[in-house]
Amino acid sequence: MSDQSHLIEQRVTSQQVFRGHFLQAMSDTVKLPNGRETVREYVLHPGAVMVIPLIGEGADLRVVLERQFRYPVGEVMIEFPAGKLDPRELAKDCARRELREETGYTAGAWARAGRMHPVIAYSTEFIDIWFARDLTAGPRSLDEGEFLDVFTATPQELMQMCCLGDITDAKTLAGALWLQNVLSGAWSLDWEVEAV
Amino acid sequence: MSDQSHLIEQRVTSQQVFRGHFLQAMSDTVKLPNGRETVREYVLHPGAVMVIPLIGEGADLRVVLERQFRYPVGEVMIEFPAGKLDPRELAKDCARRELREETGYTAGAWARAGRMHPVIAYSTEFIDIWFARDLTAGPRSLDEGEFLDVFTATPQELMQMCCLGDITDAKTLAGALWLQNVLSGAWSLDWEVEAV
Repeated sequence: MSDQSHLIEQRVTSQQVFRGHFLQAMSDTVKLPNGRETVREYVLHPGAVMVIPLIGEGADLRVVLERQFRYPVGEVMIEFPAGKLDPRELAKDCARRELREETGYTAGAWARAGRMHPVIAYSTEFIDIWFARDLTAGPRSLDEGEFLDVFTATPQELMQMCCLGDITDAKTLAGALWLQNVLSGAWSLDWEVEAV
Repeated sequence: MSDQSHLIEQRVTSQQVFRGHFLQAMSDTVKLPNGRETVREYVLHPGAVMVIPLIGEGADLRVVLERQFRYPVGEVMIEFPAGKLDPRELAKDCARRELREETGYTAGAWARAGRMHPVIAYSTEFIDIWFARDLTAGPRSLDEGEFLDVFTATPQELMQMCCLGDITDAKTLAGALWLQNVLSGAWSLDWEVEAV
């Protein structure tokens, strides 16, 4: 990578400007590459995980998806299971917890695929991408005020939903990119089997 | 699609709780599917476009990308060109404008691929996805305080950057999904040639 100092912005001051029940917003004064100053406003986020849960193998492979009403966009969205990190929670523990709470499934093996940043212009949020396989069904335990349906789809059905605009959630589209390339063999995963 | 009334939340009240230079945050009281009430906080966003610009054809095909420092995540990110809609601006006009301002290119044909929602938990933002081809180079005109490098990559290099974690911007990962499936012939585009 070439020298990037002509792109970098430096923090001058940082101030919390909003703290709600869920959202926290910051307003920082930053020094631009040309020496001038400007303001950057952004949301503080603890980070999150997304799980791509695989059921079956080969021609019988299916993925677990959710339907959930998302108030800011006013639509029922189709998504891979995901959730925010609790304080001091490891990403893999969060992946195990969210999969179990939202879908009831426990996985026999996990693989970390990578990381994405959903909203680089105005949030610190990152989402770690995990694959889960060898699923065992169990009871769900949704958070208070959380309502969602769980269903499964073939990879072909998932790709069709992405193509047709039935899936527009960016993290799930990024998950579809991972799934397509893992299934084709272009990208590989390091699976870690859970201790019994 | 089955009945989704068991998922839907209804607005009770809506209130602006923060208005900065760029960010606006709302706090709404909503009625949950079980009749209880809760609070949903979110950022108001005008919407945006992303452009996947194609140079050359066949084995010589390359995509135009940008490197830009993104303050909230503290990193130089690799991205497709993108930007917010101006008031009353049509998405295609915004796509033309952002491509020209950020990269200097003017496209001879455009195709709308679809839409994504980058942050469905706490922002109204949507991003319309456009492909551009038959590019003609010209001068850039960056916004005040905007600093970014433009470069090109082959589709294979793009996919490798996604796989290795050099690209983590979710909108660009979703763009890579579109590009991969358009190039394979799995997904098709309706190209509209620009009037000269």
